[in-house]
Amino acid sequence: MKAARLVGLRQIELQEVARPEPGPFDVVVQVQAAGICGTDRHLYHGEFPSRPPVTLGHEFAGLVVAAGAESGHQVGGLVACDPNIFCGTCPECRRGRVNLCARNVAIGLARDGGFAEFALIPGHRALPLPPGLGAEAGAFAEPLACTLHGLDVARLVPGERAIVLGGGVIGLLAVQLARAAGAEVMLVTRHPAKREVALALGAKFTAASTDEALALWPQGADAVIECAGVPETMETAPRLASSGGRVVILGVLAKGAKVTIEPFDLLFREVSLLPAFINPFTQSRALDLIASGHVQTEPLITRRLTLDEAPAAIAAPPPPGDIKTLILP
Amino acid sequence: MKAARLVGLRQIELQEVARPEPGPFDVVVQVQAAGICGTDRHLYHGEFPSRPPVTLGHEFAGLVVAAGAESGHQVGGLVACDPNIFCGTCPECRRGRVNLCARNVAIGLARDGGFAEFALIPGHRALPLPPGLGAEAGAFAEPLACTLHGLDVARLVPGERAIVLGGGVIGLLAVQLARAAGAEVMLVTRHPAKREVALALGAKFTAASTDEALALWPQGADAVIECAGVPETMETAPRLASSGGRVVILGVLAKGAKVTIEPFDLLFREVSLLPAFINPFTQSRALDLIASGHVQTEPLITRRLTLDEAPAAIAAPPPPGDIKTLILP
Amino acid sequence: MKAARLVGLRQIELQEVARPEPGPFDVVVQVQAAGICGTDRHLYHGEFPSRPPVTLGHEFAGLVVAAGAESGHQVGGLVACDPNIFCGTCPECRRGRVNLCARNVAIGLARDGGFAEFALIPGHRALPLPPGLGAEAGAFAEPLACTLHGLDVARLVPGERAIVLGGGVIGLLAVQLARAAGAEVMLVTRHPAKREVALALGAKFTAASTDEALALWPQGADAVIECAGVPETMETAPRLASSGGRVVILGVLAKGAKVTIEPFDLLFREVSLLPAFINPFTQSRALDLIASGHVQTEPLITRRLTLDEAPAAIAAPPPPGDIKTLILP
Amino acid sequence: MKAARLVGLRQIELQEVARPEPGPFDVVVQVQAAGICGTDRHLYHGEFPSRPPVTLGHEFAGLVVAAGAESGHQVGGLVACDPNIFCGTCPECRRGRVNLCARNVAIGLARDGGFAEFALIPGHRALPLPPGLGAEAGAFAEPLACTLHGLDVARLVPGERAIVLGGGVIGLLAVQLARAAGAEVMLVTRHPAKREVALALGAKFTAASTDEALALWPQGADAVIECAGVPETMETAPRLASSGGRVVILGVLAKGAKVTIEPFDLLFREVSLLPAFINPFTQSRALDLIASGHVQTEPLITRRLTLDEAPAAIAAPPPPGDIKTLILP
Ligand SMILES: NC(=O)c1ccc[n+]([C@@H]2O[C@H](COP(=O)([O-])OP(=O)(O)OC[C@H]3O[C@@H](n4cnc5c(N)ncnc54)[C@H](OP(=O)(O)O)[C@@H]3O)[C@@H](O)[C@H]2O)c1
Ligand SMILES: NC(=O)c1ccc[n+]([C@@H]2O[C@H](COP(=O)([O-])OP(=O)(O)OC[C@H]3O[C@@H](n4cnc5c(N)ncnc54)[C@H](OP(=O)(O)O)[C@@H]3O)[C@@H](O)[C@H]2O)c1
Ligand SMILES: NC(=O)c1ccc[n+]([C@@H]2O[C@H](COP(=O)([O-])OP(=O)(O)OC[C@H]3O[C@@H](n4cnc5c(N)ncnc54)[C@H](OP(=O)(O)O)[C@@H]3O)[C@@H](O)[C@H]2O)c1
Ligand SMILES: NC(=O)c1ccc[n+]([C@@H]2O[C@H](COP(=O)([O-])OP(=O)(O)OC[C@H]3O[C@@H](n4cnc5c(N)ncnc54)[C@H](OP(=O)(O)O)[C@@H]3O)[C@@H](O)[C@H]2O)c1
Ligand SMILES: [Zn+2]
Ligand SMILES: [Zn+2]
Ligand SMILES: [Zn+2]
Ligand SMILES: [Zn+2]
Repeated sequence: MKAARLVGLRQIELQEVARPEPGPFDVVVQVQAAGICGTDRHLYHGEFPSRPPVTLGHEFAGLVVAAGAESGHQVGGLVACDPNIFCGTCPECRRGRVNLCARNVAIGLARDGGFAEFALIPGHRALPLPPGLGAEAGAFAEPLACTLHGLDVARLVPGERAIVLGGGVIGLLAVQLARAAGAEVMLVTRHPAKREVALALGAKFTAASTDEALALWPQGADAVIECAGVPETMETAPRLASSGGRVVILGVLAKGAKVTIEPFDLLFREVSLLPAFINPFTQSRALDLIASGHVQTEPLITRRLTLDEAPAAIAAPPPPGDIKTLILP
Repeated sequence: MKAARLVGLRQIELQEVARPEPGPFDVVVQVQAAGICGTDRHLYHGEFPSRPPVTLGHEFAGLVVAAGAESGHQVGGLVACDPNIFCGTCPECRRGRVNLCARNVAIGLARDGGFAEFALIPGHRALPLPPGLGAEAGAFAEPLACTLHGLDVARLVPGERAIVLGGGVIGLLAVQLARAAGAEVMLVTRHPAKREVALALGAKFTAASTDEALALWPQGADAVIECAGVPETMETAPRLASSGGRVVILGVLAKGAKVTIEPFDLLFREVSLLPAFINPFTQSRALDLIASGHVQTEPLITRRLTLDEAPAAIAAPPPPGDIKTLILP
Repeated sequence: MKAARLVGLRQIELQEVARPEPGPFDVVVQVQAAGICGTDRHLYHGEFPSRPPVTLGHEFAGLVVAAGAESGHQVGGLVACDPNIFCGTCPECRRGRVNLCARNVAIGLARDGGFAEFALIPGHRALPLPPGLGAEAGAFAEPLACTLHGLDVARLVPGERAIVLGGGVIGLLAVQLARAAGAEVMLVTRHPAKREVALALGAKFTAASTDEALALWPQGADAVIECAGVPETMETAPRLASSGGRVVILGVLAKGAKVTIEPFDLLFREVSLLPAFINPFTQSRALDLIASGHVQTEPLITRRLTLDEAPAAIAAPPPPGDIKTLILP
Repeated sequence: MKAARLVGLRQIELQEVARPEPGPFDVVVQVQAAGICGTDRHLYHGEFPSRPPVTLGHEFAGLVVAAGAESGHQVGGLVACDPNIFCGTCPECRRGRVNLCARNVAIGLARDGGFAEFALIPGHRALPLPPGLGAEAGAFAEPLACTLHGLDVARLVPGERAIVLGGGVIGLLAVQLARAAGAEVMLVTRHPAKREVALALGAKFTAASTDEALALWPQGADAVIECAGVPETMETAPRLASSGGRVVILGVLAKGAKVTIEPFDLLFREVSLLPAFINPFTQSRALDLIASGHVQTEPLITRRLTLDEAPAAIAAPPPPGDIKTLILP
């Protein structure tokens, strides 16, 4: 079978590899849709640790074509992959904080993932798609699960205000989740087309900059969801929070990168900074939210590519206005 | 009567002023003990906004010597002052976040306080001391209430670890509250005598520096309570938090002062920053905790001065090793 | 002025009384809309304690026509009354649980209320209506604030399911709030017209009985909101909760009335019972939710009566299908 | 090897069975201490479903004498068994509520447990004992983990009051946990010796009955922890809760048994009923709390028996005053 494999620093190529055989607890998934994520590009550029050679792709869904006897699955089911295989026994797992597992083995990073015709994953990491959901929607389960964790951390209640910073896929999922939680939502992003998408998905306001956002809501928002992952938004996020507000950090800065905060301001307005890391027990709820229509994924798909096109698409920066590129093997 | 009044920038003096008369909702308290707080020195140096001329002193307790008909008090009761008169009608008050009241009028800052023979305060800001508690203990009600809010925000559960940064009065109260919540506690402070006090008050470990602390607990603590209020500890606090930990910010830096954080580290270890500002509905619980013996105040009193000595004591920096100086008018 | 006053057991009459004059902290409100609540009927029948003679009416809004100097209000503003005057100094108030205030003095129960041409209330209990909101909507602020407290207690997150029991005004407000919180909502009530209203207000399903509800959702709901206040629904509510679910009790049974629970079932499915009593700090959020369109009140108004008609309307049971009767003085 | 096996209704006998061999993910534990639990007696009497023939015993600890290659364990380690093998893939597990797993397979109930010389368990259900802890203490890990979950649900903060109902092992563990959380604790139990133990373990008060308890604390307690599991205490528990209090239900009544509640009282005092079922992610914290000395187990051991004596001990009711009987194979 074909697989897009990272073979070294800035080296990704389509290779012919053996089709995987399932162990008793595993399933083999025929990948139908796999999203390219910023992390894939970080891995390519060596900005994140990885273990080449490895097949990338941690956001994918497809058809179960082989199922181990103890996998809990039947051939023929549609599933989405939850890429995080937490260990279950480290101190973090023992207290239920599995997203912080020190021994997490991530599919598509530390073992072969979904930019391939077939992918081998443990049965318990294959989540059945709710009736009516296709693999393209299922490919959003992982990024949505991460965003949902961020929104859980934000604890929005109906009638509050939320500002989402960054109009990428995470930001546009956050817009929808904040709205589903009863918040009035503003998206701040520079690209006009993304602002249009946000309005179509339920944002009440959009802004191109922090200043524009403050002009619209001088009191700020109860929750500010940082989804841009750039120093500028990380630093201005607290300014956009209202008194008593929460800044949720979903965006990833480079390891070692610093930003400044003003503790006096955080303290006197009691604004908290709450990071939300990957997806602890949120992926099946994420699928349900797509199935119930609370979250739309179709408007977020800006490109569909073949597996052959995957290496070049990962090696290149995303085209302007790109939200989510799906590989359809 | 005599009162220690701030009359202008770096000008504090003992003045003879009229003894206050209570309105129908007020009480007049004969001040028996009033603590000097770092804030008093900030007000003296103009580092915090104030409205001179004003009698300072916001941590005090004493005897009700006159009580308005609607005050809810009787002459003869011992009370501690809760200095924050929140408005009850601003958006923050309406949603119960009274510590963030935009129109808070603080006794001893914006109106006359407790460095005086008598103080006039609204009846609802005079909390009856639990049986057996004297005014010296009562003078700790306000700082303890602030620290208790910090510990509420920390949400410690039995078996967790807490590191308290700074061995001033707030830090040594935090040590006792963290221990009362079932945590194993380490105090980090430079002054050896304060470390001794912490051990006597239930800390299990002490350290003179962040490095010493990390040598003792390389995994860090579930909650790090910043009570030093200096840039150095504010910046190192997240490093002392374990994966999934909370950094509670009680210490006050100067307005405009910045410190740097590393968002990548906060995110991947999901360490949150949680400021805790003054005392929302915590002061009566604070008094109960002194009464029940969970919190000791006597070991924290390092000086007792007369009202005549108050102006000089506020104008000068605290003597080395000072924890809490009480004015006994 | 005219006022509908309870003068004794099962005696309510329209009386001519003096128009109130505001003290320095009070406002006089020209009542424009006042809702009849089940509690008014309970007071009439002596099922709730009251202090006749007293003007009933605790759900009202109108125009400020006189304002004390310290009231914080200007003549000409539209306000909604929050009827609960908590004391601020009892143990419950001191820890912020003002809805449990032992000395609460409720307007329209323990002192004169809103079934009158004019009502005198403390300035801090008069909440300005958001721009665009009229007095009819404002008359829903109190019942909505109570329901909102119930929904806060329910802690629904997007994608969960909620079952509301009882299609009165509380139930139909709960339907809207649960939906605003991202839940899929089912209303259970016997009256077909109320089920129609629920569907129009965002319920996804309705049922006429518990059995019908279970047939639709055999797994039950994450939150069951009891708003019928009858023994039958109180007792079946836990059966409708899913494993790990919450039963929120808003409905009021008679003092002393008992229902049975099955502790084994509650325990093994970890279903909790969470009562929610009146409105702690929720009324301004309630108004905002009407203003933002999350909650519609117009479809809940089934009758508009004059002040002259109020006594008879309170003395009689509500007509079949009645949801909210407003008195327009 | 020898094992105490349930072979049918009210039939338990010591049998000679094959010593288990570990699969790749399993460990074999040489059982050094195993506690008899009320559940064992319920299984014997057919009051709980079981699958005989099965070796009972779900509270045990011992030495790893064989370890599969993927078990994560080394021969020679001391471990405590967490008996609940949750499935990881049902809807409850997927959202992290593993204690509600619909497919939980409990060791000592649905598969062979610890009343035997050796027990085979999955490596991830074997928790390493903290340094210094022996198997007798380790045998308390499971009941303490359940009790700890109850205390987590109670959310006690320092300065609150807790009443524990029932002086069995669960009650006496609850006493210690409530105290560790900073609460003032009262134990209510009829047996004088158990009350003595409670006082020695940190209870401040004891009472022989609900009436005695109310005489001591007329306002009730912030948290009432039901650990008796009898209809009487289940029914009186809410009466012992203060306004705003929480009743935590740990005790198990028979399936189908009913008790009555008074909804009016629960509502007007906003007293919630919070069941806490088995141990979600709490067992390693439980071990840490024994290791740190917050919880003592030695005073709770009232009998030590051999494996030969186990069947008779399970078949008979516990002797008066019995707290925890350990089987030492
Ligand atoms: N915490 C987690 O578990 C988790 C999981 C997944 C992803 N992430 C992180 O979340 C972040 C977002 O992911 P993504 O996939 O949505 O990335 P993305 O597609 O690159 O989106 C980031 C967006 O931020 C916007 N942006 C850049 N600079 C901005 C500025 N100064 N002000 C406002 N917006 C700005 C960009 O849009 P414009 O050019 O239109 O402004 C861009 O579309 C990334 O850092 C990613 O690593 C975290
Ligand atoms: N959030 C609130 O509501 C609230 C309420 C009250 C007070 N506060 C603030 O809380 C802070 C503490 O108040 P306080 O009255 O306890 O003040 P304090 O007496 O000045 O105590 C601060 C302590 O921090 C220690 N410290 C200084 N630099 C340190 C370092 N690099 N590492 C470790 N410890 C260091 C000092 O002790 P050593 O010299 O021994 O190290 C000093 O005793 C202040 O910033 C105050 O403004 C906040
Ligand atoms: N907790 C609080 O703070 C608070 C505040 C306000 C009100 N309340 C209480 O909340 C409850 C509801 O108030 P409301 O004003 O909405 O009262 P309501 O208008 O009398 O509504 C109750 C509804 O329950 C329905 N009902 C009666 N028996 C039922 C059954 N067996 N199954 C399903 N539905 C049933 C009735 O509708 P159908 O005939 O259509 O079934 C009725 O419309 C009352 O008990 C009230 O006292 C509590
Ligand atoms: N939720 C869970 O996950 C979980 C886990 C483990 C156990 N449990 C349950 O927790 C309960 C306690 O377990 P255990 O092992 O401690 O049982 P236990 O040893 O039987 O203790 C129950 C105690 O309740 C006391 N009691 C009986 N009637 C009483 C009354 N009217 N008033 C006050 N106390 C009374 C008895 O002591 P006196 O004779 O001295 O009064 C007895 O010692 C059981 O129901 C058990 O099934 C639940
Ligand atoms: Zn792990
Ligand atoms: Zn205010
Ligand atoms: Zn009160
Ligand atoms: Zn499961």
